[in-house]
Amino acid sequence: MVATSPALIHRRSLRIGIVGFGPFAQFLAEAMLRQGHSLTATSRSDHSQRCSQMGINFLKDATEFLENENEIVLLCTSIVSLEEVLRSLPIGRCRSPRLFVDVLSVKEHPRELLLQLLPEEADVLCTHPMFGPESGKHGWAGLPLVFERVRIRDHPLCVEFLEIFQREGCRMVEMPCEEHDRMAARSQFLTHTVGRVLSEMELEPTPIDTKGFQTLLQLRDNTLKDSLDLYLGLFRHNKFAKEELEKLEAAFQSVKNRLMEKISEEALAAQSAVPSSASAARGRA
Amino acid sequence: MVATSPALIHRRSLRIGIVGFGPFAQFLAEAMLRQGHSLTATSRSDHSQRCSQMGINFLKDATEFLENENEIVLLCTSIVSLEEVLRSLPIGRCRSPRLFVDVLSVKEHPRELLLQLLPEEADVLCTHPMFGPESGKHGWAGLPLVFERVRIRDHPLCVEFLEIFQREGCRMVEMPCEEHDRMAARSQFLTHTVGRVLSEMELEPTPIDTKGFQTLLQLRDNTLKDSLDLYLGLFRHNKFAKEELEKLEAAFQSVKNRLMEKISEEALAAQSAVPSSASAARGRA
Repeated sequence: MVATSPALIHRRSLRIGIVGFGPFAQFLAEAMLRQGHSLTATSRSDHSQRCSQMGINFLKDATEFLENENEIVLLCTSIVSLEEVLRSLPIGRCRSPRLFVDVLSVKEHPRELLLQLLPEEADVLCTHPMFGPESGKHGWAGLPLVFERVRIRDHPLCVEFLEIFQREGCRMVEMPCEEHDRMAARSQFLTHTVGRVLSEMELEPTPIDTKGFQTLLQLRDNTLKDSLDLYLGLFRHNKFAKEELEKLEAAFQSVKNRLMEKISEEALAAQSAVPSSASAARGRA
Repeated sequence: MVATSPALIHRRSLRIGIVGFGPFAQFLAEAMLRQGHSLTATSRSDHSQRCSQMGINFLKDATEFLENENEIVLLCTSIVSLEEVLRSLPIGRCRSPRLFVDVLSVKEHPRELLLQLLPEEADVLCTHPMFGPESGKHGWAGLPLVFERVRIRDHPLCVEFLEIFQREGCRMVEMPCEEHDRMAARSQFLTHTVGRVLSEMELEPTPIDTKGFQTLLQLRDNTLKDSLDLYLGLFRHNKFAKEELEKLEAAFQSVKNRLMEKISEEALAAQSAVPSSASAARGRA
């Protein structure tokens, strides 16, 4: 008999409720719908029209949303609004949700909030799909889905949720939230910072751009597709970000100093090659 | 009768002498040889073996090199050594070369040096092939060749030289050297600076890299394939580079300040939301 993974045996339609329905939530929802899951959404902004187009049940009222029988609540708020949204949800009215999942680009911050604000009965999975509508527009194959099983008792349900990403071909990376934040500060936050710095410079394509410069312009444009709120959140709620910002500044100063030293050395060499009348006079004294 | 461009009529093997035979010269020489031109090279380092492999006549002695009947002398030194090399060449021993061409990544600097140090009879063409062994490894099609006809009397010879790049599919961009330097400071020098700054940070790939971060690592690696001398030359001999460095620093500070302001605002908001006993006491007074 051919071995079948338990994951495949359990494959079924999940009832997922999404909190917050911005571009990233919509992007994730498309894949979930393709996989045949049943979605409900709630949001402070009115997304009823978009939801109706997509075939998603939109419930403006958070109580009604929570009373709906969702197995999983997927938190898709911005980093900066997660706490306020979580506190505003009448969590006591939850009927069946057993698993709460966040998808924020920082991980320690939601981990702490979810453990603090959710009832002990709720399972908690922290995830970061490290891609978005731009980098994932041609599919998710090979793109990283980082996650930590923070507090899981219903393991099959957690696995069923993770399989959404696995089926799309994501590289599944299980690591502690703190480890994620340490690495993401050095990669994602740094990349956003370079993009934001370049955008401050108001660079324009020229007729003589090198390939490297075109790459930088592309990076800047991609960064600016993400909101300023995301960038501020990456900094504010990742304790490693400040250190990386300081390292970037120190690296810039080091490069700048090397250039300036070079200039000074050349100026000194030029002086000693052509002695001034003053030093010539000292020589004679 | 079908019109034939004069360029095509004149197509023939050119006798080109190359001064300096580093990686960039070798890269250019490969295309010239493919096109059937006849090459001689001289260099302060001994490149006789590489030249012999490629089918190029290597003459260590500069006088012998100049006495050779080259129509064109192609200067492929580094930016920082051009002046010294030019002054060391016994130009008076030149037999036939009518056209001197440089390929440096800055343009005003060689323009001034060539006009100052070459005899009035020599024609001068300043060029910058804005690509290299890395960006041009799959061909030169669409890549910019920037040039200024600085002092040309023998126009057909100049056109024959430019056709080397045209035949490879380069985008031919004729512009004054000063204009090139203004644009290149904002594109090429800036790109190199970002690459050098990133390399100072000793970044490593992580299991959770975003596509944007992978792009930055690639940019850093490509930048480091060019020598530090090139980077120092881009700064030292392009009068617009310092201003761009300052703009980059200002842009970084602006982004950093926005982050810090955000932190302060949130700290203030938190203070006013939970009044301290001191401020509560003041309120009662």
